[in-house]
Amino acid sequence: MSTQQTVAVVGLGLIGGSVARGLAAQGNRILGYDSNSASLDAALSSGVVTRPLSPTLEEIGDADSVIIAVYGDSALDVLQRINAKAEDVGLVTDVGSTKRGIVAAAEAVPLGRLFVGSHPLAGDHRSGWAASRADLFANETVYLCPARQASDSALTRARELWISLGAKPVEIEAGAHDDLLAWTSHLPHLVSIALAIALEEAGISRSQLGPGGRGLTRLAGGSPDVWTPIILENAAAIESAVEGIERQLMMIRKFLRTGDREIIRERLENARSWAG
Amino acid sequence: MSTQQTVAVVGLGLIGGSVARGLAAQGNRILGYDSNSASLDAALSSGVVTRPLSPTLEEIGDADSVIIAVYGDSALDVLQRINAKAEDVGLVTDVGSTKRGIVAAAEAVPLGRLFVGSHPLAGDHRSGWAASRADLFANETVYLCPARQASDSALTRARELWISLGAKPVEIEAGAHDDLLAWTSHLPHLVSIALAIALEEAGISRSQLGPGGRGLTRLAGGSPDVWTPIILENAAAIESAVEGIERQLMMIRKFLRTGDREIIRERLENARSWAG
Repeated sequence: MSTQQTVAVVGLGLIGGSVARGLAAQGNRILGYDSNSASLDAALSSGVVTRPLSPTLEEIGDADSVIIAVYGDSALDVLQRINAKAEDVGLVTDVGSTKRGIVAAAEAVPLGRLFVGSHPLAGDHRSGWAASRADLFANETVYLCPARQASDSALTRARELWISLGAKPVEIEAGAHDDLLAWTSHLPHLVSIALAIALEEAGISRSQLGPGGRGLTRLAGGSPDVWTPIILENAAAIESAVEGIERQLMMIRKFLRTGDREIIRERLENARSWAG
Repeated sequence: MSTQQTVAVVGLGLIGGSVARGLAAQGNRILGYDSNSASLDAALSSGVVTRPLSPTLEEIGDADSVIIAVYGDSALDVLQRINAKAEDVGLVTDVGSTKRGIVAAAEAVPLGRLFVGSHPLAGDHRSGWAASRADLFANETVYLCPARQASDSALTRARELWISLGAKPVEIEAGAHDDLLAWTSHLPHLVSIALAIALEEAGISRSQLGPGGRGLTRLAGGSPDVWTPIILENAAAIESAVEGIERQLMMIRKFLRTGDREIIRERLENARSWAG
């Protein structure tokens, strides 16, 4: 992205904060908003955000690009709120983990021609402005899901923005994105949660686990605010993925019952060669 | 453990090698054996092992304590082989992940009065002598499962040996140990394997996962040589544990189908407070 642009970042948590820091470090001017005034104050006093946006996001039209970095249904609200005000903006994007809903919402409004959904595969076990950092996206994949009517120039801007943050853009249709992520992200998350609850019901505390079990239950500590909307939005695709692992567990249980050494060994070899 | 003892270590892989290194560093004399002659040579040339044992383990009676650090059924073979030769030894222990079988085997032979099974909760994704290190057991739990007829002095020796390596001994009956480990260790391992195979069948490669999914499938890369005998020996207890997570996954799938936001949120909160 060429520098000296004005970028509005709505939501200054881990992801929004990291976008703001990375773009500010390249000499862009950052307009920022967060419903948590302590986060907004911290972003302003760090010098990363140069001007606060008002809660109505009235000044959004001053930006060359807009990043919506709030989670769940709030992103849809922001989209509706800025729809009439973003006419002169060159790009509107978000950073959510599911893309079908937000892209469909953008396609239904005039702002759709500016909209390219983003999903950077980056995170941290901590959250909030304090955990954000300019290099969070370095070498990570970012999925880009343009609205049907998105202009070439909006897509080019989205690519350039993420490349300037060190990420590697991959274009994918919103529905295909959500189907893929059901397997690569949402399934591992729910497996970690199911394991945590099964262990809890068996009376096992996390401190009784070895390093392997601790690794498998780490994701279960994730924020319900972040994950509830993701799970609900992508429920149908996740259902199939959960069925996929249930099938494997049932099969393992069958082999345990028959005590078939060869088949158990073969499954373990198979898993190891996939895990490489 | 008082220093200047003679300790025989049979099997110089990650665990046996680490025991040998830790005890040698305290001034004990280590007799060592490994069926892989390159490992034995490396242990000898490092100075950790001062004398090799012959493949028949003829010289085992020279040791004050014996550590059997080979995996699976091989540990039972070693136990049988040394049974008549270990009369003057003060302690015979092993390091296997399941304890019912080896403790029962020790209880059936005269050597049982010297036998205290051990299971140190330590590991590494690498294996073999090259990966072993003197501090592998620092601050980790080690379960101790004495044979029914084990002498107090054998149990005291076992405690002192592991404490001298920095581990924290916890005494537990062999069957109770295996039932507990089915949940804390064997279940997480099999969940990782089931997830890996489900992802493979869905056409997903490990490189498509984010950091969360990579963490959950790391255990799937474990050695089939190590895990096949563990899984088979503890099959009945593992079956119940696998059923436990299947039940949770089925319940999650039901809530996905009904789209019940409150219940999904409650499950996530529940898992988070356990993982806390």
